[in-house]
Parts: sequence; structure tokens; C-alpha cells
Amino acid sequence: MPPAYAEDAHPSRIGWRLPPFYSPFDEGLIHPKAAELEERAIAWIDAFGLYPDATERAWGLATRSADFTSRIIPYGDVEPMLLFTQWNYWGFAIDDWQDSGTTTTRTADIVDHSARLVRAVEAPGSATLPPGPHTAALEDLVRRTRAMLTPFQAHRFTEGVRDWVLGAAWQSANAERGVMPSLNDFAAMRTSVNGTRFTLTWCEVANGIDLPADVLYSTPVQALTDAAGFIVSCDNDLLSYNKDDHHVPWEQNLINVLARHHGCTPREALPRASAFRDGVVTLFVRLRDQVARDADEPLRRYLRSLEHWIAGDLEYHNRAPRYASPRNRNELPVEGASYDITLTGVPGDPSAEPPPLPAIAWWWRQLDR
Amino acid sequence: MPPAYAEDAHPSRIGWRLPPFYSPFDEGLIHPKAAELEERAIAWIDAFGLYPDATERAWGLATRSADFTSRIIPYGDVEPMLLFTQWNYWGFAIDDWQDSGTTTTRTADIVDHSARLVRAVEAPGSATLPPGPHTAALEDLVRRTRAMLTPFQAHRFTEGVRDWVLGAAWQSANAERGVMPSLNDFAAMRTSVNGTRFTLTWCEVANGIDLPADVLYSTPVQALTDAAGFIVSCDNDLLSYNKDDHHVPWEQNLINVLARHHGCTPREALPRASAFRDGVVTLFVRLRDQVARDADEPLRRYLRSLEHWIAGDLEYHNRAPRYASPRNRNELPVEGASYDITLTGVPGDPSAEPPPLPAIAWWWRQLDR
Repeated sequence: MPPAYAEDAHPSRIGWRLPPFYSPFDEGLIHPKAAELEERAIAWIDAFGLYPDATERAWGLATRSADFTSRIIPYGDVEPMLLFTQWNYWGFAIDDWQDSGTTTTRTADIVDHSARLVRAVEAPGSATLPPGPHTAALEDLVRRTRAMLTPFQAHRFTEGVRDWVLGAAWQSANAERGVMPSLNDFAAMRTSVNGTRFTLTWCEVANGIDLPADVLYSTPVQALTDAAGFIVSCDNDLLSYNKDDHHVPWEQNLINVLARHHGCTPREALPRASAFRDGVVTLFVRLRDQVARDADEPLRRYLRSLEHWIAGDLEYHNRAPRYASPRNRNELPVEGASYDITLTGVPGDPSAEPPPLPAIAWWWRQLDR
Repeated sequence: MPPAYAEDAHPSRIGWRLPPFYSPFDEGLIHPKAAELEERAIAWIDAFGLYPDATERAWGLATRSADFTSRIIPYGDVEPMLLFTQWNYWGFAIDDWQDSGTTTTRTADIVDHSARLVRAVEAPGSATLPPGPHTAALEDLVRRTRAMLTPFQAHRFTEGVRDWVLGAAWQSANAERGVMPSLNDFAAMRTSVNGTRFTLTWCEVANGIDLPADVLYSTPVQALTDAAGFIVSCDNDLLSYNKDDHHVPWEQNLINVLARHHGCTPREALPRASAFRDGVVTLFVRLRDQVARDADEPLRRYLRSLEHWIAGDLEYHNRAPRYASPRNRNELPVEGASYDITLTGVPGDPSAEPPPLPAIAWWWRQLDR
């Protein structure tokens, strides 16, 4: 089923057919317990009353967080996946709150809430957040997370939250000051803004991967991790462009940033965005192959989890009603709506040079000559 | 020599005699290479032209960052200590920039700069900061830091920077909104605002301590670490109160927060601040003894480094012209000015109950019954 929209009332700046996505990864993987995960997560949501009414609930469930988890961790342990799924439903609620008023929500307010949130994750029971269903749900999540994760894993997750909220605050600061970021600044910050490090620890936990810190934080492994997070973020930008195109000032996404960079329209920027994204996938594949050559089994499994993340996230975005029946064009989410994207085993421009962006040039510098 | 001030022109709200500090630690330790560290650090500062003129240079050197490093790491390796000292001179310049205009610098501007700074530490050469002496010095620091530290240490340091800037942004957000934090919120955030995690990694590196991640991030060790950072931050608040008392809105420090909490004057809040601080030292000592009982040698050395940090930091604050000849009362720093504080082996109120603050109650919960 195609995307749901009324083109007359609110024309898309980029259209509804996206260029093919270079995806040299296993396609269509999904965890066998996906349905059970969704059912259990929704029961938890309803127990905490996370949404104020039926419409908000419908849009909350349309994030399909259980599908997200099931596609990016197709072979994981169910219990951490359930907890991560609940974190995601909860995170979308917060994310939509932070996105809800780029023109009216001050950076100062965002930063205040963010610092409180980090502290609630870091030191359970700190009572730094106002009481209510979101806080009660958060405290439940934090308590169970601390019981399930090792101290190092719990710390990494906390850092992932801190990285996310600082990135989100940076985006708010741009909106408040009326700044559309430069391409280099955007590339530097995008993985943080998108909260990718919030996700990563859970992929490791659910997949039973526990790399030594000096391996995990080695430069080539961090380059691969950041590149994967950037690809996932580009895909989010492509598939959520129409969902967010009512915001003023314009959303800080890859397409709008490229349009500003090249002085062209968003529609003209779309193929450039696609080529840019494919170029990072090309880098990822080359560097992955290089690192895998001398990797031990845990590191190989980590590399595989990054692939699952990229491929699963794209398919998730393709199918979730949140994206293909966007709220700015629909009263309620439309079941079955999809962008019906095309995957391809060949990048748009296989000879692409590294982009001339200092903020991410170090990813390419990890490649052997 | 006493503190330098003209009481007529600008009376202090709390006076210049501070209550005795409970300090059951080795006194007066200082690294034998302190003078060499200062000399080498200043040569580096001057090579990068970190200060625009002689007055700024005098106040920059009055931070006595070499003395700070030499007192908190009295037995450390010189090369990491030198690098950390240079980081501190650099950090004070940034800190003073962030503090310089609580009324005029918007949170949005602080957040933008902060996110760029973190990225520069995380991904050297990102070109997210404007060119100039501060950026050139930063790039030199980052390059040498990444060459000296293990991947995990470099990551911890980066996280320390991120934690610091988010804390500082929270403080700016309060100033922008005219909010003096509640005592619980203050206790929750103070170690982050003060950048204590920026310091910690260097104590570990210079002391040759490399704890396994699951030990370092275990709850009792984190409670001790946070408590130490909080004590250090309280001491900073007591000894820098007069330095910062010209700010509008009033500085968010322990004394002003307690004054608001109890509805009293800063002068009346001073003994309360002292008792509160001593109470945390009491907790620290009890928990340290408990953790030390079953600790292996690396963990014992870590605990000792926390003691050195607390005791060395207090003596540093007592002596640095930055504090005892504050800039808001002196044209130039006064050599030899000091608060001449009194140390005592007994806390003000040894029977003190834990403060009724959920944000830090977990420190006391780590104590065996």
C-alpha cells in the first residue's frame, strides 16, 4: 500500500517516490517474537497510561517500536528487547515533545528537562522530574534497566542518553537562533541528534556482545559505529521528510541542509542526499570488511549487529505508519501505508570520493591504502 | 597573607573568615615537580597566545592550574600531569567565558559552542570551532591526549567533557530563566556543573590506575566518586563565593541555594553550607573504609586518589590568587593572598543524619547497616 497523503492540501516538497537505497545486507530479517514483543510492550504502555487519549495512543503505537527492535535485533534475547522496545515507545513520546514546538520551546527549557532526565537515568529516584505518567514509566524503565545491565552497560546507556539530549539541545539551539546548520556541522552532530547511541548499547546487550572497552572505543570500531549511526540517521531524514515538512523554521535534516549547501530546492537535493548516504554505506562496507579480517568472534558479532541495525532500521522506516501516513496529513495512522522503497546491491555512484567534510573525514582515514 | 579586598567599596555578603573544614586526610601534599610543571605549562600557554593581553594573562596564571594538578596528584607521572595542567589553564579560559555573561549569553549560544567543543574532543580535526588561539590550543591538547591515553581513557575523558558542558548549560538555562535551583536539583547537578568528571580521568591516568569498567562503574564506587566530586564542588563554592558575588542573577552555589532553601541570608547560610559539606565528607570516609575493606590494590589506589583530590583541591583553593584576591575587587591578582582556612579532624556535627535529598540519598544507601 502506498504512502497516505492528500497532495492537493499539502504538497510534498520532495515527492513520495524515494531513490533506491544501496543495501548490500541481508534483507527482511525480523525476530520471530515480534508480535509477542508488541503485545507485551503495549500492555506496559497502557498500564502506565503513557498517552492522554485514544488519538495520541494511536500515533504512539504507530511508531511501531516493537517492529523497530525486532528488525534491528533479529536474533536477540527477548527480555532485553522488550525493555528496549518500551524505552523506544517512551523515547518517541519525549522526542515528539521536544520536536513539538521548535518555535516556542526555548533551548533553556529543553536543557533543563534534559539534564533532569539524564540524572534520573544515572541516579534512580533522584526526584528531579515532575511527577506524572512519563516519569513513573521512566522510573520503571530505569529500575529494570539497572537490574538487567552490567555496571558498564548501564553506564554506556546513560552516556548514550546524555549524548542524545545534548545533540537534541544543539538542534533546538539552531532552531531558536534561526540557523540551518552547515553540511559539516550537520555531519558532525547528526548521530547525536538522532540518539543513535541510545540504541547501540541495547543491540549489544540483546545480542550478548560485550567487547572490551579498548576494542569498542578503538578508532576504527568507533568510525564504523558512527558511520552506521549516520546512515541510520540519513535514512530517517529521507523517510521522515514529509512527516516534518510543516515545521517553521524548516527541519534540520540532510535534505534541507544539502539544499542550503548547494543553493537548490529540496527536490533537487533529494538525489544528492541519496548519493551522499550511499557513499557512507560504501565506506561502511569497505571498513567493515577490513576490520573483520583480523577480528575475533565477539567483534565479528558486533560488526554484524551494526549491519542488522542499518538494514533493519531502513525496513522499519519503510513500513511504520508514523512515516508513510504522516500525522501532518492524516487524522489517524493508516495501517499498511508504506513508502515501498527499492533496495539495490549497487551504490548510486560506486566511484564516489569521500565528501570534503573534516567532521567525518576520519572515517575514511581508517581505510588501508 | 590574608585575602585581598576593599570591604568599603564592595562588602562581602558572607565575610572573609570561613568556618573550619573537616579534613581527615593527609595535609599539604604536593608533587615535587610542581615548579617545573608550572614553568612548562606557561611556556605552552605563551606559545599559543592563549590570553589577549598582560592583564588577562595575569588572571589566567592566577588560576594556578599547575598548583592544582600538583596538589591533587602528588605522586603522579609528570607528562600526563603536564597535559592535564594545560587542559586546566585552557578550561579556566572557557569557564570564564561561559560565566562571563550569565545575563547576556543565551543558553542557545552556550549549547552550540558546547556541542562543537565536545565534537572537537571526540573527533579531532572536525573543524566545528571558529579558528583562533583557543581552538589551536584545543587541537594541540586533543591530539596529544589521544596519543597518550588508551581508547577507553580517551573515551572517559570525552564523556567527562560532555557531562561538564551539559551541566554548565543547565546552569545557564537557570540563569536565563531567573531560576535559583532547589537544594535537591543543585545536589543532583553540582558535580556535573563543576566539571569534576573532566578531572577524574586524569587522576587515574597520572596515577597509573586502570580499573575494570564494571568496578569503576559499580554503584558504591560511583557513589564515592560523586561524593568526592560534590565535596570538591562545595569547597569551590565556599572559596569562590566572594569572587562571584557581583553576578546578576546571583551565582548558583551552595550558599545561595541554601539561603533560598532556608529563607535566610547568605551569611546565615554559611555555617549550614559548612555543616552540609562536612556531612558529605563523613559519608565519604565511612563508605571509603567500607569499600577499602575488600578492595584489591588498584581499587585501593583509586580510593586514595579520591582523597588526594579532595584534600589537594581544598588547599589549592585556599592559596590560588584567583580566589583570595578576587578579580571583582582587584585590578591584578595579589601574590600570596590566602583565605588561611582552618582544617580540623572532627566534623562540625559528627552525628549528622543524611540530608533528606533524594538526588544524593543513594550515596548513604551504599553503607552497610
